[in-house]
Amino acid sequence: MEYLGLCTDLYELTMAQSYLYEGKTGNAVFSLFVRKLPENRNFLISAGLETLVKRIENFKFGDKEIKYMRSLGIFKDDFLDYLKEFEFKGNIYAIPEGRIVFQNEPIIQVEASIPQAQLLETLVINTIQFETMIASKAVRSYLVAKGKKLVDFGFRRAHGLEAGIYAARASYIAGFDGSSNVEAGRRFGIPVVGTMAHSYVMIFEEEEEAFRAFARLYPQNAIFLIDTYDTLEGLRKVIKLAKEGVPVIGVRIDSGDVVSLTKEVRQMLNENGLDDVKIIVSGGVDEYKIKSWLEANAPIDGFGVGTKFITSADAPYFDIAYKLVEYEGKPKYKLSPGKKTFPYKRQVYRYYESGKMSYDESVKWGTERKGEKLVEKVIEGGRLIKELPDLKHIRETVMEELSKLPDKLKSIDERCEYEVKIL
Amino acid sequence: MEYLGLCTDLYELTMAQSYLYEGKTGNAVFSLFVRKLPENRNFLISAGLETLVKRIENFKFGDKEIKYMRSLGIFKDDFLDYLKEFEFKGNIYAIPEGRIVFQNEPIIQVEASIPQAQLLETLVINTIQFETMIASKAVRSYLVAKGKKLVDFGFRRAHGLEAGIYAARASYIAGFDGSSNVEAGRRFGIPVVGTMAHSYVMIFEEEEEAFRAFARLYPQNAIFLIDTYDTLEGLRKVIKLAKEGVPVIGVRIDSGDVVSLTKEVRQMLNENGLDDVKIIVSGGVDEYKIKSWLEANAPIDGFGVGTKFITSADAPYFDIAYKLVEYEGKPKYKLSPGKKTFPYKRQVYRYYESGKMSYDESVKWGTERKGEKLVEKVIEGGRLIKELPDLKHIRETVMEELSKLPDKLKSIDERCEYEVKIL
Repeated sequence: MEYLGLCTDLYELTMAQSYLYEGKTGNAVFSLFVRKLPENRNFLISAGLETLVKRIENFKFGDKEIKYMRSLGIFKDDFLDYLKEFEFKGNIYAIPEGRIVFQNEPIIQVEASIPQAQLLETLVINTIQFETMIASKAVRSYLVAKGKKLVDFGFRRAHGLEAGIYAARASYIAGFDGSSNVEAGRRFGIPVVGTMAHSYVMIFEEEEEAFRAFARLYPQNAIFLIDTYDTLEGLRKVIKLAKEGVPVIGVRIDSGDVVSLTKEVRQMLNENGLDDVKIIVSGGVDEYKIKSWLEANAPIDGFGVGTKFITSADAPYFDIAYKLVEYEGKPKYKLSPGKKTFPYKRQVYRYYESGKMSYDESVKWGTERKGEKLVEKVIEGGRLIKELPDLKHIRETVMEELSKLPDKLKSIDERCEYEVKIL
Repeated sequence: MEYLGLCTDLYELTMAQSYLYEGKTGNAVFSLFVRKLPENRNFLISAGLETLVKRIENFKFGDKEIKYMRSLGIFKDDFLDYLKEFEFKGNIYAIPEGRIVFQNEPIIQVEASIPQAQLLETLVINTIQFETMIASKAVRSYLVAKGKKLVDFGFRRAHGLEAGIYAARASYIAGFDGSSNVEAGRRFGIPVVGTMAHSYVMIFEEEEEAFRAFARLYPQNAIFLIDTYDTLEGLRKVIKLAKEGVPVIGVRIDSGDVVSLTKEVRQMLNENGLDDVKIIVSGGVDEYKIKSWLEANAPIDGFGVGTKFITSADAPYFDIAYKLVEYEGKPKYKLSPGKKTFPYKRQVYRYYESGKMSYDESVKWGTERKGEKLVEKVIEGGRLIKELPDLKHIRETVMEELSKLPDKLKSIDERCEYEVKIL
């Protein structure tokens, strides 16, 4: 797919054609916000802006897109000509990636002629929801992992290849240390990690032989998966090899009763002078398990976090909307039950007390207040006017944000709603 | 992304290098199966094979992939040379798209030299899980919709653009009538649908003016969204326009108490001689709501199904595995607790009673039984040996399969487990 113009819902195109046909080309502002946070999320991490900016640059219509649209029989030549020349010429306002955001806060605001702003709807929601959702899920593991290593093992169960790649990005900015996803490593410079699977152990006649073969090739990366047949038996083989001088960096356990097993494994390792050997746990890991294992003092050094984070399994979508809030300078509201919107392009001010976030105020753009401004203009007249931060910088932003987040909002199991005043 | 070679987990690459280094290049069979169906799924629809075949053809390593891998410092030149030449040369056995499958049945089996079969793991799981999951979710709406139209409105809340596109495909084979996703329409020939959003109505000074403008341009597609301000008021405007001769195909309602509203809307339409005008409902629609609305005799003609289906929200991942089951002709087992595997390449036989599915038998490949064979060889020596069916044909397969599915398995809210005998 060279151009992304068709990555939209049909109605964006039918509406855009009608706007042009009716001479409706005034300046519109659409706001992307999450109406209500999911039950298990006290805050969100804004993510996906860089991806969105790239996609908007690519939101064009080439020959094959135009040809397909013509075949539908509902688009006129002058509209197809308009699309051939389409390039986004409007403004984008965003709360930067890595910032903490809450309900009803405009993560993205698109200001452009109404056909332009309308056409981007699907792309904006799709891109920002996904990365924000995954970052907001991944950070929950970070919050309870107490500095233990976290790596993304989720690629295989992501909703497609692209989802796996962008989820690796989102988890890295949210505090993960690496990913098994090689394409994400290449594309974003995320550290890639991984050792062996059960199949590897099973290919060799003896488990011990598999371990020896692996250590031969990867002495610096000798982490052995020990639960293919019997975890403690597997461990005994690792200990035997270590005593022979075979390098042993760590062991990985992918099944069983994690708390009792890891304690037993740690004890056996230490009794054999292998205090430096790391214990990595994978298999169904999520923030709830990490918390309960660490509370039970399971001696785990690192976690492979997979399926549940990469699908945001307990909240696989947000109540997220892209709503018209202003047209030709006039406020726009929707009155559908349960779907109230707040008019005007907006700024969000954040207030702190003793260094911790206290409350936010959402105000009409142009209203000067005392708090810290969260919304920045990033695209003007279609051109990027701010250098977007690299991944490491976004990750540091997240860490800084977390240091300012009140403890009660950091809870992974107690609901706490932050105050967002809408003025 | 031209090549997909890096769409894998790092350990597939480290294992593959070690296999080659150790001279382990024997014939391996890996089996992809769902261990246990999710709580809310009595059966699955096999989907994703065509996508997988295309991706396997593209699973190669170009210059930028090799360059990145070299930069990691863990891959030797001879392995990188092996990857440069990599092309899948093995066999793929599959249960065709559109067939109904159950727990522990080998949806895909990959037979190849162990480095080859290992390298495909992530790609195979990722591709087949997603489309199978979405088809299996979408078909539940089809089962309760009693012939009413179903369209995919989920693109915006899918886990990325690619997920939205392939979900449209999966929902179409599972009985949906169309999708709002334009790229999916172009790529797969799925009928595309869509009319207007609330923003469209709000751009015009008066709701009525918006409706007139829309009907002017799209007389054949004049479906009016009537709940932007007040649903019944919106409807009155539509009725007024119809009396003036403006074309009115249908009305769409996206909020409110669906049962009472649609009854009122139907009655008002009929009282005005507009018996042919359709009522379309969208907004949080899933199979549970469709069922309850239709049971309450809500006069709905079509549903826009979105977020919950496109994220498979009640089961956003499967307990799916790609396991080594055979190496050099010998059976392979894993004994990790709760993760039992069944050895050997397998055929699945299906038995019927009075035209309905009765039970399945999974047997070692080559064992001849009386039932209907589900597994077919589709790729041999890396070459496709069967023409894959087109989307319409797969959709017909689903319909035929559903006609043979026992009623109790069609329930969306009662758990019923089909018998799969593993011999």
